[in-house]
Amino acid sequence: MALEQLLDHLKKSAALGQVSGIISWDQETMMPEKGAAQRAEQTGVLAALGHQLSSDPRIPEWIDAIDQSKVSDFDKVNIAEAKRSYEQATKVPEELAQTIAKASAEGQMIWAKAREASDFAMFAPALERLVELKREEAKCLSNNQGDPYDTLLDQFEPGAKTETLLPLLEGLREPLVTLREAISQKPSPKGFEGHFDAQKQLALTTKLAKQMGYDFEAGRVDISTHPFSSGGGGDSRITTRIDEQDPLNCLYSTAHEVGHALYAQGAKDPFMPAAQYCSMGVHESQSRFWENQIARSRPFAEWLYPEMKDHFSEMKISSPDEYYRVVNKVETGFIRTEADEVHYNLHVLLRFELERELIAGNLQVKDLEGEWNKRFEQYFGLKVKDVKLGVLQDVHWSVGLFGYFPTYSLGNIYSACLDEAMRTEMPNRDAQIANGETTQTLNWLREKIHHKGKLLSAEALIQSATGEVPSAKPLIAYLENKFSELYGL
Amino acid sequence: MALEQLLDHLKKSAALGQVSGIISWDQETMMPEKGAAQRAEQTGVLAALGHQLSSDPRIPEWIDAIDQSKVSDFDKVNIAEAKRSYEQATKVPEELAQTIAKASAEGQMIWAKAREASDFAMFAPALERLVELKREEAKCLSNNQGDPYDTLLDQFEPGAKTETLLPLLEGLREPLVTLREAISQKPSPKGFEGHFDAQKQLALTTKLAKQMGYDFEAGRVDISTHPFSSGGGGDSRITTRIDEQDPLNCLYSTAHEVGHALYAQGAKDPFMPAAQYCSMGVHESQSRFWENQIARSRPFAEWLYPEMKDHFSEMKISSPDEYYRVVNKVETGFIRTEADEVHYNLHVLLRFELERELIAGNLQVKDLEGEWNKRFEQYFGLKVKDVKLGVLQDVHWSVGLFGYFPTYSLGNIYSACLDEAMRTEMPNRDAQIANGETTQTLNWLREKIHHKGKLLSAEALIQSATGEVPSAKPLIAYLENKFSELYGL
Repeated sequence: MALEQLLDHLKKSAALGQVSGIISWDQETMMPEKGAAQRAEQTGVLAALGHQLSSDPRIPEWIDAIDQSKVSDFDKVNIAEAKRSYEQATKVPEELAQTIAKASAEGQMIWAKAREASDFAMFAPALERLVELKREEAKCLSNNQGDPYDTLLDQFEPGAKTETLLPLLEGLREPLVTLREAISQKPSPKGFEGHFDAQKQLALTTKLAKQMGYDFEAGRVDISTHPFSSGGGGDSRITTRIDEQDPLNCLYSTAHEVGHALYAQGAKDPFMPAAQYCSMGVHESQSRFWENQIARSRPFAEWLYPEMKDHFSEMKISSPDEYYRVVNKVETGFIRTEADEVHYNLHVLLRFELERELIAGNLQVKDLEGEWNKRFEQYFGLKVKDVKLGVLQDVHWSVGLFGYFPTYSLGNIYSACLDEAMRTEMPNRDAQIANGETTQTLNWLREKIHHKGKLLSAEALIQSATGEVPSAKPLIAYLENKFSELYGL
Repeated sequence: MALEQLLDHLKKSAALGQVSGIISWDQETMMPEKGAAQRAEQTGVLAALGHQLSSDPRIPEWIDAIDQSKVSDFDKVNIAEAKRSYEQATKVPEELAQTIAKASAEGQMIWAKAREASDFAMFAPALERLVELKREEAKCLSNNQGDPYDTLLDQFEPGAKTETLLPLLEGLREPLVTLREAISQKPSPKGFEGHFDAQKQLALTTKLAKQMGYDFEAGRVDISTHPFSSGGGGDSRITTRIDEQDPLNCLYSTAHEVGHALYAQGAKDPFMPAAQYCSMGVHESQSRFWENQIARSRPFAEWLYPEMKDHFSEMKISSPDEYYRVVNKVETGFIRTEADEVHYNLHVLLRFELERELIAGNLQVKDLEGEWNKRFEQYFGLKVKDVKLGVLQDVHWSVGLFGYFPTYSLGNIYSACLDEAMRTEMPNRDAQIANGETTQTLNWLREKIHHKGKLLSAEALIQSATGEVPSAKPLIAYLENKFSELYGL
């Protein structure tokens, strides 16, 4: 009885969360300009009601009344998640939670203006405040135990700790720097040139999404400034962006978001916490897998190149192989979201170390821009001359997201682990992918990742899928093989 | 203090209502097919939370604590509306409210199937149940006082009573029947023929909406099976439908929904009850005014005809005058929503009398189909051979909407009252409309209707706008003049 009541409550809570998701999707894709002021009020009410549901005092009472010895593994996870979200909702005093919500909303607005004006000083006070507030939040959540950064990290990557994450991620640095330097000695392939009609991009991106197994009866593709995926189960939507000079932007962001959405569409239940995604790192492993290991692979170029030719007859690229080289061009740049596979994790490492130091108080916000620029030059060999290409490029910190960045690299690490295991089990995968056949690939992920929900921790999930403790080795090996071949190292 | 708390609560309640509106807009326009099951859960949670807000026990406490002598007229209406919605939410026992919600959701599904199968008997038990439940609801709402039908009517047309509505609406019958019979002796203009490209229809309908003053920065137009308007303030959306054989469908449904949306965009405050629409009848007066008095007028044909030619060069109509005649073709038919201005209110009268008898218990559901067909033949001179063209054509009763139909005719009556007054005050309106200039017309409505919100009752509002007690005379005169000229009576 108590279990049923708890599960029913969790279902309501999840349904309300989905409403918030649709409302924020609408805001990015459909909402008319003048709806913004009303929308802020609407999302405020939804947040308050969501908080009310997660902090319902009956939750601990129901949990206490449940005889856990008679509960399925699936429902044990539901109970644990109910407890987790109840604690998240109740340990932080409501006033602090509201202050953080407000500081994040304001932080984002100030960040956008500061970025526009290329003026870090304009943003610094808001960021300083957010660092303090998030530190305080971490204290509340952890009962003032342990490292506050770990507490923040735990919200995105449950169970992860800096002490295990750090060697994993830092292990990427040297091999990636070595690889990048070797590549920089080699001639670079040409880029994409021409005008690529928006409607044709959308048509091709839809075809690509279908080919990857994205179910359009349980989703849709729209346009937004920044691509994202949202929702779950029978209503898992994605967005893309269109740049008429560069069709790759649209194609690969779609492949990425489709990866997220396939995970969401593959959940065994649309409401129960135990059936939802395991962690942000695992979520990112799904998007990066489809974006990189599949869509940027040599075999997939066999399927994609003729499609590109079909849609963009004026394209000045003459073979799948040339196409493969162009879409894997390595180039040192300032922007994380535009980085190639070799550089991407180096961008994350910079953020990971800076945000740890900020939260620990070893780095002051006033020194952040200087530190960013100094280290960026050290790691990337480029001088940051405009702060909008530097520390102001990402929105995350402006909305209080500390501990989020490392999940991007974790996603890359996990996707390579999965790729390696899948290749062993499916020796003819390349041949399938070259024909655009993705069913077996998707089914493998469905069974080993999507259907598992939160039943295992991220690490245990990857281990159960691959038979190996997750490590950076598969990613390093994958990148070294791929780019050695590509650049003739 | 109590007033501020009450107003803040009303704002939250309204914001949540807007969320429900967007979610149901999404359902009709954007939601992928497989999202339906989750959506039902989501709307259920929103309804429960909405009910929780409207029935918050602090509402009567706040109201009691307010010194009404110090309150503005605007806030007096807010207080009255808070009381009204509190009573609506609390007088009906929760179990009954949930039973009705469930019976309505099921009723609509069964209706859709029965209509598809042209089988009234399939729908009858569900309708019987709904009639009983709504009667019970009316008893609760009225503390078992007065006519239950009036109680239901009051939910859509506050303050309206059958005893005043009946002579007003029945007064239309004889003049309309006379007019229809006179017209039926005359030759009918030809109809529309050809293929009309969907994109061009959408382009023209967007132009039409803009021309009428619809603010696209505070709204948008999408496609749905049945056109509707939703939202309010800075986010007032409309939908339209496209029939490639008949562009008038799209154009005039857009004009209709724009009329509703202009009213919504013209609210002085997006949240406060006192600033929202006065009644369903007044809402309908706005849609019908723009659809009929403007978009189907002779002067507007001067503006619209060349636009039609521009968009549909193959159109076989050779002058604004011919166009005017075609779009005002009078033809007796079975379907209310397709009825011309002469027949429309006769369709409403039939429903008005049948639903009164159903709620009063003077007509049994088992006899409804027979009664419908008998009276339809009597009033319209046509035999109903397929029940989907008869009693199963409208969704309203299947979702428990009794007392709604008369507001359609009230809307027609009010729109003619407004039209008559406006013509007197704006002698050059025809010339403006012929040039597509609608600003003065819209401003007149903004000032006299839109900005007044709920400050006056519907009747008082129309009287304050026109200087006359609302009556059917202006509508009868308008129709007689228009169609006598059109058909040379």
